[in-house]
Amino acid sequence: MKVPAWIPGLPAVARDDDLIGIPGDDAWPIRRAGLFPKPARCSTSQAMTVQSQPMQPDIAATPEFTFKVAARDGAARTGAISMPRGVIRTPAFMPVGTAATVKGMYPEQVRALGADVVLGNTYHLMLRPGAERIARLGGLHKFMNWPHPILTDSGGFQVMSLSQLRKLTEEGVTFQSHIDGSKHVMTPERSVEIQNLLGSDIVMQLDECVALPCEDKVAEKAMRLSLRWAERCKTAFGTHPGRALFGIVQGGAVPSLRVESARELAAMDLKGYAVGGLAVGEPQEVMLAMIEAVEPHLPQEKPRYLMGVGTPDDIVEAVSRGIDMFDCVMPTRAGRHGQIFTRFGRMNLKNAKHAEDPRPIDEQSACPAANGWSRSYLHHLVKAEEMLGKMLLTWVNLAYYQELMADLRGAIAAGRLADFIAETKEGWARGEPGSSPA
Amino acid sequence: MKVPAWIPGLPAVARDDDLIGIPGDDAWPIRRAGLFPKPARCSTSQAMTVQSQPMQPDIAATPEFTFKVAARDGAARTGAISMPRGVIRTPAFMPVGTAATVKGMYPEQVRALGADVVLGNTYHLMLRPGAERIARLGGLHKFMNWPHPILTDSGGFQVMSLSQLRKLTEEGVTFQSHIDGSKHVMTPERSVEIQNLLGSDIVMQLDECVALPCEDKVAEKAMRLSLRWAERCKTAFGTHPGRALFGIVQGGAVPSLRVESARELAAMDLKGYAVGGLAVGEPQEVMLAMIEAVEPHLPQEKPRYLMGVGTPDDIVEAVSRGIDMFDCVMPTRAGRHGQIFTRFGRMNLKNAKHAEDPRPIDEQSACPAANGWSRSYLHHLVKAEEMLGKMLLTWVNLAYYQELMADLRGAIAAGRLADFIAETKEGWARGEPGSSPA
Repeated sequence: MKVPAWIPGLPAVARDDDLIGIPGDDAWPIRRAGLFPKPARCSTSQAMTVQSQPMQPDIAATPEFTFKVAARDGAARTGAISMPRGVIRTPAFMPVGTAATVKGMYPEQVRALGADVVLGNTYHLMLRPGAERIARLGGLHKFMNWPHPILTDSGGFQVMSLSQLRKLTEEGVTFQSHIDGSKHVMTPERSVEIQNLLGSDIVMQLDECVALPCEDKVAEKAMRLSLRWAERCKTAFGTHPGRALFGIVQGGAVPSLRVESARELAAMDLKGYAVGGLAVGEPQEVMLAMIEAVEPHLPQEKPRYLMGVGTPDDIVEAVSRGIDMFDCVMPTRAGRHGQIFTRFGRMNLKNAKHAEDPRPIDEQSACPAANGWSRSYLHHLVKAEEMLGKMLLTWVNLAYYQELMADLRGAIAAGRLADFIAETKEGWARGEPGSSPA
Repeated sequence: MKVPAWIPGLPAVARDDDLIGIPGDDAWPIRRAGLFPKPARCSTSQAMTVQSQPMQPDIAATPEFTFKVAARDGAARTGAISMPRGVIRTPAFMPVGTAATVKGMYPEQVRALGADVVLGNTYHLMLRPGAERIARLGGLHKFMNWPHPILTDSGGFQVMSLSQLRKLTEEGVTFQSHIDGSKHVMTPERSVEIQNLLGSDIVMQLDECVALPCEDKVAEKAMRLSLRWAERCKTAFGTHPGRALFGIVQGGAVPSLRVESARELAAMDLKGYAVGGLAVGEPQEVMLAMIEAVEPHLPQEKPRYLMGVGTPDDIVEAVSRGIDMFDCVMPTRAGRHGQIFTRFGRMNLKNAKHAEDPRPIDEQSACPAANGWSRSYLHHLVKAEEMLGKMLLTWVNLAYYQELMADLRGAIAAGRLADFIAETKEGWARGEPGSSPA
């Protein structure tokens, strides 16, 4: 198989919240389908306590890590991952808390939006403040004041994308910190050890994530190494009934390699499976084709996590293909750069057309940041590079992402996912009433 | 009179929140005197609604701008400035909202700390987004979601300190914007017009603020020009019963010039008086001497505002000499740089000694930022330059400043200001229990 043809200029979406460029401001419209009652407008303080979708009394934290599918609609599923620290309603979007903070948000705000889980970046945390230090301080949950579930990545992705002087062998990766040049060795065993020190509820295996496009043999080699590392991670992780180790499907853009990876990992009987090595610049159809290829080979009774994805459009497409969990820096990073996601479409608040617009972003939104300040004010804050602008627009985006996930869960439960997605995309394409499509 | 000898290395405290360096981390200890009941620990969301000191039912907004002294203790006074938009409990500290935002804080948070008034910077707002634009959008209160009183400065201080190619004449100042080089003319009439466009509740006269130290004749010339500009501002302001124009006492470090300025301004029967041109690098004793010189010549029944001041120590000293209002960037700017003010003294969270300290800043504080996260976490956020670090430490500092003002008001009302100040300073000098003085 040859290297696929890539669509030039398609923005890359990456898992790190710091060092990769902002995606382009191409039109990307959104609309809410109205499955849930229209939220009442509330104040900043109320929004920090009001759950956008209250937890059902029948789903509760459990002593063992479990996943229960409550309803299906085609390949899509909705359900709950339960563990001692809480419940993750699926499909779930995990806000990225790279350096033990979801940038620009108080933890209570993140929780109040309906986020059940956040992601922590092993690479960043091992370098600063250090995994052993966090462990001495009582673990990552206590450190960052987030008592709910935390998923940590393995560090492998950032080692390959951010660090210097990398050397990869069968044993692991040797690299230098991008912060201070200090030398570190990351092995499957050390990655699990670090994630244990952090106190992660969902631990990711160390994998080799190759850049796309790549030659098939490069993808194959990385996939097989990742399988061997998965075995080593499983041994290192041992038995932790209340926590989980997830394997990561690799195989580049080669369906047969992806299938082989999924089958081998399934045979290891891990508690969950991620699809990795996507959302690294390839077209959406390549990503979706890889999901379709592996989905039949992933155990139905285990959660599935598409790493580093993505736009709301990526998310609805992946949900309809059986994915349960997502993480992405897009809502937080884009918000810091003035770009927001609404049910009417994407907006760039830097744009001069907002300079004297007295309307809030969306007066029907339950998020104070979306209903409580004018677009003109937000435009001003973005232009003046004020912290409050980054805070408010990050809030807007995380609120929209969590609202979308709640709507997806409701649509699957109601058996109307296809209709919901069609309505949502129609709204995205139509834009705001009385204005041209975004 | 000769130019005074300055204490080398004394940090300057300035009114602008952007462009002037961070003061040194010299030991500067604080302690709370315990006049008020120990606050209960509360959550982030609760802290946005709980007033640190509830408004008394007998002080309410009034249709006309009024000032009532409720109690005196020596030269110190406590009372209330009332106007249609609300009540300012005095002595009051006004957080600085340079570009229509108190940096890193939601407006509700600022209010919940007990701030009755914020300051807006005319120079910044006239350049971006522009006074006429803010007026078209309904005024500054609506623009920034702060329905309570706003005081605006005249723009003169920043024109002289931030802009380029200034030319000062009897008519006014011609200058170029530090943002885009655009040319502007600031006259007393235009300053009042801009502040009217913003919808300011307390308008400051345009004055000439000279750098200290300076020759007496320079101070005298600027003082006399400021008096002529005060007359022009009074004419331009006209009659607004619900709003106020304040005059500004100038005269450098020359007591006789200060007295002349105060007397001339008092004869103009303005609604309030500021002492300007201080806190520009001179020693504290020079500043206090100038306050002592002018205090007998300022009308007892009018509020007095010491511009751009200062450290908590400056504030308690000035309150005891009859000052009612303060503004300063210190709590917000220092917080963004990792420096905090506590009842135990000043701390620099960048300092490595905090790296593994599991204690909160002050577990008895009512401020979630001070009682809800460990010093180790705050240290990490500061080192990693995370937004949340700036947000939390700004919050800590504004909470301490507002608590200090509430305690000062209570101490004056109880007739024990001298004891309160002595206890407070003793606490600052002693530092935390079990640790060496800060």
